[in-house]
Amino acid sequence: MTPNVPQGFRLAGVHCGLKRNPQKQDITLIVADQPSIAAGVYTQNLVFAAPVALDRERTPSDSIRTIVINSGNANACTGEQGLQDAREMARLAAEACGGDESQALVLSTGIIGQHLPMDRITSGIADAATQLAADEESLLAAVRGMMTTDTGPKLSGRTLELSVGTVQVTGMAKGAAMIGPNMATMLGVILTDAKLDASTAQQLLSAAVGESFNCIAVEGHMSTNDTVLMLASGAVGEAALKGDDLAAFRKAVDEVSLDLAKAIIDDGEGATHTIAIEVCGTDTRDSARQIAKTVAESALVKTAITGADPNWGRIVSAAGYAGVPFDPAGVELTMNDHLLYQHGTPVEFDEATVSESIRSQRQVQIVLRFSEGDAMARFWTTDLTAEYVRLNADYHT
Amino acid sequence: MTPNVPQGFRLAGVHCGLKRNPQKQDITLIVADQPSIAAGVYTQNLVFAAPVALDRERTPSDSIRTIVINSGNANACTGEQGLQDAREMARLAAEACGGDESQALVLSTGIIGQHLPMDRITSGIADAATQLAADEESLLAAVRGMMTTDTGPKLSGRTLELSVGTVQVTGMAKGAAMIGPNMATMLGVILTDAKLDASTAQQLLSAAVGESFNCIAVEGHMSTNDTVLMLASGAVGEAALKGDDLAAFRKAVDEVSLDLAKAIIDDGEGATHTIAIEVCGTDTRDSARQIAKTVAESALVKTAITGADPNWGRIVSAAGYAGVPFDPAGVELTMNDHLLYQHGTPVEFDEATVSESIRSQRQVQIVLRFSEGDAMARFWTTDLTAEYVRLNADYHT
Repeated sequence: MTPNVPQGFRLAGVHCGLKRNPQKQDITLIVADQPSIAAGVYTQNLVFAAPVALDRERTPSDSIRTIVINSGNANACTGEQGLQDAREMARLAAEACGGDESQALVLSTGIIGQHLPMDRITSGIADAATQLAADEESLLAAVRGMMTTDTGPKLSGRTLELSVGTVQVTGMAKGAAMIGPNMATMLGVILTDAKLDASTAQQLLSAAVGESFNCIAVEGHMSTNDTVLMLASGAVGEAALKGDDLAAFRKAVDEVSLDLAKAIIDDGEGATHTIAIEVCGTDTRDSARQIAKTVAESALVKTAITGADPNWGRIVSAAGYAGVPFDPAGVELTMNDHLLYQHGTPVEFDEATVSESIRSQRQVQIVLRFSEGDAMARFWTTDLTAEYVRLNADYHT
Repeated sequence: MTPNVPQGFRLAGVHCGLKRNPQKQDITLIVADQPSIAAGVYTQNLVFAAPVALDRERTPSDSIRTIVINSGNANACTGEQGLQDAREMARLAAEACGGDESQALVLSTGIIGQHLPMDRITSGIADAATQLAADEESLLAAVRGMMTTDTGPKLSGRTLELSVGTVQVTGMAKGAAMIGPNMATMLGVILTDAKLDASTAQQLLSAAVGESFNCIAVEGHMSTNDTVLMLASGAVGEAALKGDDLAAFRKAVDEVSLDLAKAIIDDGEGATHTIAIEVCGTDTRDSARQIAKTVAESALVKTAITGADPNWGRIVSAAGYAGVPFDPAGVELTMNDHLLYQHGTPVEFDEATVSESIRSQRQVQIVLRFSEGDAMARFWTTDLTAEYVRLNADYHT
């Protein structure tokens, strides 16, 4: 079911010529009726795109009026001209909704190393501004405007009955592993009508991203454009959320983020399995996350799952080179609830049964337990298939 | 041409039943007529095999008489029994050559999580001891005894005319990326008749490995068993090498190590290209190596090469998340001597020409230049093919 559009926002997605297919939206406008609280989390890649540079400067903020998003061109590796184009794109979007040019944020995804066709962007923004609405159709059009190789729109929402009234949290995202022709870009936007202050919004968003979008890996390749933004219109309630209201809201933001992150993994190109890796019993969460990430990024682990092979050796040895100290004799491993490894050695298990449990389900659950402490972390990834290689090797031909 | 066996060594490789095919050698004995200098470099994986534990304790040394090597079983993740088996294997080898049990080193490669069949190991060592010789045939049999999925024996040698006499450096290695059924193991043994002291031998070997075996990656999965050993019989000369002799010897050890490391990459499973990545202009060698390694391990970079795609974006963005600070505007990239990227933006180039230069050669050369300093490093890897995935997904079926 499509979630509701939070109060105070209108959206549109239109085609302006960045994608070849005229049926496909390629530019999205999200407009807040009043200046809104905005927060952002960005790629850590040193080679970052122009819109990332612009948004980083402008968030957190308490006066954002619009987010303009284009697909088909990432405006990355485009130098000084790229920065000018991103600023111009922001100015056009702000102008279209009656705001000041500094009140706009920009997201771009698509091909890198090519300048934005500003004539199309200009006409696209003007067109989108005439179609702004708060209905389901507009929300879906807006998500489609940010899609690249995604097989469908990624949306998640929560409706909360709080003491201040009914609060809506609605998130949209794009990302499906490798995105063409150059890399995987993940974009996310979370809209809410809750009242927040900017520093709380930033803190909530950073925490949510840390447990969701930053805990997924398809090929471990961090993009030049990865960005998650949150806009809070403040249309509901008189004062900023606090106490139980804030706790419930925080949980909703966490859940929406995780839903979207998992939707990206589930849409991984060529994947036949999603893999959930839980690491527990480490001294710190960072240690657990580092091990989970290393296992998630191992091509040998991924291909073992593709082959429905309960290959404990590849998993345990990946943990062993994660750079986190642990006692090898204290390691325990289960896969789909079957115990495969304990006290530093494999246990007897029925390989055919475990193999069948991998083959018959789309999701595989790997749990690695250590004897160092009480911390834990989760990470999600996909398997690695010959189809993935074909998609990524043959992309540009 | 097969290199000579250095003076003071005899070798044998026989079949004892660890591999199914009775035509294939699976156990190797290398015997030094006199106690020899020994050095070792080992996997950094926390989950390391029993023979690694044993050899680590015994090197550097000035009294090693023998190395016994088996393929087909890695003796890894085998607990206390595995350690006992490794010690027994060492004792049997030492006994077979008239040495003390502490004078033996052990290497194992193959399946992990299964105990060594000690009856076969025992008879294999006894059999090998009767066939020790210093001829070409024995050297080839010895290398074959350590092979797993390697398509052929990996050997490299240098003959040096030094002031102390003619010194031979001969190296053998096994490794071909993923090795079954559990992971990639790389083993190397370098033999020489030079006279060295143990600390110099260790220092030379560590340095050579750091620039060769530690600069290759197929899937970035560090094995439980990776080991490189060096034995120096001291049969040539009266005193330990020094001055120009030592410098020439050091160069030979470096070259032999690099030859073997490149042979492993060239034998990468399913690979259609080898990729040489040179990173220069960083502040330190570690920075250069970290960037080169990150590029080498990117599935997106590897699949781009598979597809003969001069995809500068995947390479530059992989550099951007290597965790090494640099000025993005100072980055320059060439592929097969074609300039693709400069001053932080792509340059115009003929994509068809560069694509054809990738397609038509087995080796691809990537050079990334930074503007941070004068340090550099090289790294070698392979492309990532659908065939690789098939080999690694279908291994156990």
